[in-house]
Amino acid sequence: MSIRESERLQRRLRIRRGIRLHPAQVVVVGFAAAVLGGTLLLLLPPMTRAPEGTSFIDALFTSTSAVCVTGLTVVDNELHWTPLGHAVIVALIQVGGLGIMIFASLIGLVLARKMSVRARLNAATEASVVGFADVRGLMRGIVLISFAIEALTWMFLFPRFLFGYGYSPVDAAWHALFHSVSSFNNAGFALYSDNLMGFVDDPFICLPICAAIILGGLGFPVIMQLRKEFTRPLHWSMNTKLVVWGTIVLLVGGTLFITAVEWDNPDTFGQLNPAGRVLAGFFASVQTRTAGFNSVDIGLMHDESWVAMDVLMFIGGGPASTAGGIKVTTFAVLFFIMLTELRGEGAVNIFGKRLSRAVHRQAITVVLIAVAAVMAGAVLLMLLTGLAFDEVLFETISAFATVGLSTGITADLHPLAQAVLVLLMFLGRIGPLTLGSAIALRERRILYELPKERPAIG
Amino acid sequence: MSIRESERLQRRLRIRRGIRLHPAQVVVVGFAAAVLGGTLLLLLPPMTRAPEGTSFIDALFTSTSAVCVTGLTVVDNELHWTPLGHAVIVALIQVGGLGIMIFASLIGLVLARKMSVRARLNAATEASVVGFADVRGLMRGIVLISFAIEALTWMFLFPRFLFGYGYSPVDAAWHALFHSVSSFNNAGFALYSDNLMGFVDDPFICLPICAAIILGGLGFPVIMQLRKEFTRPLHWSMNTKLVVWGTIVLLVGGTLFITAVEWDNPDTFGQLNPAGRVLAGFFASVQTRTAGFNSVDIGLMHDESWVAMDVLMFIGGGPASTAGGIKVTTFAVLFFIMLTELRGEGAVNIFGKRLSRAVHRQAITVVLIAVAAVMAGAVLLMLLTGLAFDEVLFETISAFATVGLSTGITADLHPLAQAVLVLLMFLGRIGPLTLGSAIALRERRILYELPKERPAIG
Ligand SMILES: [K+]
Ligand SMILES: [K+]
Repeated sequence: MSIRESERLQRRLRIRRGIRLHPAQVVVVGFAAAVLGGTLLLLLPPMTRAPEGTSFIDALFTSTSAVCVTGLTVVDNELHWTPLGHAVIVALIQVGGLGIMIFASLIGLVLARKMSVRARLNAATEASVVGFADVRGLMRGIVLISFAIEALTWMFLFPRFLFGYGYSPVDAAWHALFHSVSSFNNAGFALYSDNLMGFVDDPFICLPICAAIILGGLGFPVIMQLRKEFTRPLHWSMNTKLVVWGTIVLLVGGTLFITAVEWDNPDTFGQLNPAGRVLAGFFASVQTRTAGFNSVDIGLMHDESWVAMDVLMFIGGGPASTAGGIKVTTFAVLFFIMLTELRGEGAVNIFGKRLSRAVHRQAITVVLIAVAAVMAGAVLLMLLTGLAFDEVLFETISAFATVGLSTGITADLHPLAQAVLVLLMFLGRIGPLTLGSAIALRERRILYELPKERPAIG
Repeated sequence: MSIRESERLQRRLRIRRGIRLHPAQVVVVGFAAAVLGGTLLLLLPPMTRAPEGTSFIDALFTSTSAVCVTGLTVVDNELHWTPLGHAVIVALIQVGGLGIMIFASLIGLVLARKMSVRARLNAATEASVVGFADVRGLMRGIVLISFAIEALTWMFLFPRFLFGYGYSPVDAAWHALFHSVSSFNNAGFALYSDNLMGFVDDPFICLPICAAIILGGLGFPVIMQLRKEFTRPLHWSMNTKLVVWGTIVLLVGGTLFITAVEWDNPDTFGQLNPAGRVLAGFFASVQTRTAGFNSVDIGLMHDESWVAMDVLMFIGGGPASTAGGIKVTTFAVLFFIMLTELRGEGAVNIFGKRLSRAVHRQAITVVLIAVAAVMAGAVLLMLLTGLAFDEVLFETISAFATVGLSTGITADLHPLAQAVLVLLMFLGRIGPLTLGSAIALRERRILYELPKERPAIG
């Protein structure tokens, strides 16, 4: 019965698209179409202020960066584009952010239906938490929640731009809109040449943006459960608990480490008062999950901060969110597996529930492929550019985890190297999701078991 | 019955040491005692040619590096020590290499006895392959095999030093002895200030040394099985198959990559003829598993080679070998888990046998702890020294995986930073083994199973 339901859902997906596609293929085709459409739009003359127009690689890079909500840029986002160009970019961001949340949630729904009835009753799975029975309801829910949080962020940013910085009402409304959408969708695009460095010690700009980023990075299933059961943390699903606690630990840890390392750095936090330094540290920590705004020059931060940000960016945000990376849950699952081993326990129990064994292998697979993609990308960039490993590693992780932070090298790279980053952004955005869904939706048949053997480890 | 046997074996271990210790504690205490003994010996005036003697940190560092068969040095190994000092170092290397093989094999034996009788019959476990029923036989076997391979290596090196380089017979014998022991035990100590750079294009020195290193890095259980069943690869245990095939793949891949990257580098391979470049590439590839000799200046190699060597060093050699790293088997197990996921199969089957599920978690644990130790060590070194990430990462992996290759920074580090490396060498040498044994030897009781749940991954 559960299998049949899932098939009906998959069939409906196919009918909506007109052709028979595996959900994973739908994701790839959908994102590729959005990137190409965006590229063509951005190539049009009215989009740019540059008299020579926009080159193909610049348009492709910007479109990929917007649709994949990465935020890496090869042209000056303030000066190169007209307001129309900015409108296209913000639309691509919104499409990309909604797209990833909808696809990921749909796949979660199909997956949940595929589980046995008993497992579903026990599991408090995401789909039952989300509470949407059909595809249309789910999509409507995601769109409404997104717009609601973006509107709320807008209401904080608009008066600050209007009164705090003396923008005209139209300008203030537009800047608030652009940065709200860019924040909630973890895109990291800003309307300023220096990103958000002008607001480094302004909590009225930084904090609403951080709040929108964190909410967007939690993921739709978590947002829905928090909305319903915020005050009953014991009822949360394992997914919600892992995302919420993981996010808190990573945010606090990142803030403390980056603030401590950069405290006296005259090129970054050193010029701020103590409160400003903590704000800047918190802001930088939030950006690694994986929004990618910057309020100080990343290129001038200490190498230690880069390494910490490498790790945080690689981990990323929650599943079915606008954030990238291997996901907080993947990292948490590996951590709890390790804890179980060190304690010598037989089963991996997290918050009073047993972790499904299939998840062990899934987590290993996602991490190994992410490591392989990042390392291959880094070595390729080194061969193409001759830049140092730390710079290249930072940029590669930033692209793959769709963060968009940069040590400053991206804009000056050879087009071939930029093409590598385009590929990494695309792979990083849709890779883990399509891979995960392709794996999870496949039938597993165990026809016979081979005799067991254990090689020595470590 | 198997439990009782294992307990008897553990008890015997305790009786031999006089006090009741867990095998993991025996390893820690044994290695710490050897390091301290070596430090005290190396502090004695007759050991050094330097008029001011040897400082405590230099003696501690050298002793740790020798006992842990790492090969990192803080003093000039040729000029600082007298022949007596070199004799102490080679003795420490031999003790450390034998120690790690004996402890690891013993733990494998205890572990094998702990498996159920049926599992043992199916599994062709290491212990049954090794064919030694008791501790004394096992130890004797390891010592004999080690000395036999070292003697064989000596017979290739001695005539070359004697006739090819015109050493006196005593000098040739001594140099052949030192480098044989240093090679088989994957120590990487050489009697020359520039390590083995003087022999970069001499296959009669490089190849015997490489052969000894590769054999030492396979591990005792694999050597024993190859000795008995070299021509019957289908009969090999999963452990042997993983180590042999993994070693071949990594050696060939490493040789191709490093040779290609360094081909035109005027500071490394560029000055050699084509055959010499391939030899140097093969030599460098072998050293990462984890002997640590160098025939070119590592500091002048390209950054891409460093990254490749980082990866190869981190993986290391076979279990129960003189090599370090997370071990080829650990890496191979994770790779096959990924392959199983990508193929959508239900069980991880390797070479016609099913991989024990307990091994999944063990492999994850070893890798996570290794990554954490390396990252923590690298950040600590960066904070202490202000050096760049790529240099520090190379040195940290080299220390933790007991490789001993260096970009050249170790000798000039602050004593505090050198102390970090001492700790990393010690942890890297005995950590995975003691951790693995502590986990594997512990009783696992599953009293009740909690309801299952699966969070979203990737
Ligand atoms: K981003
Ligand atoms: K070594």
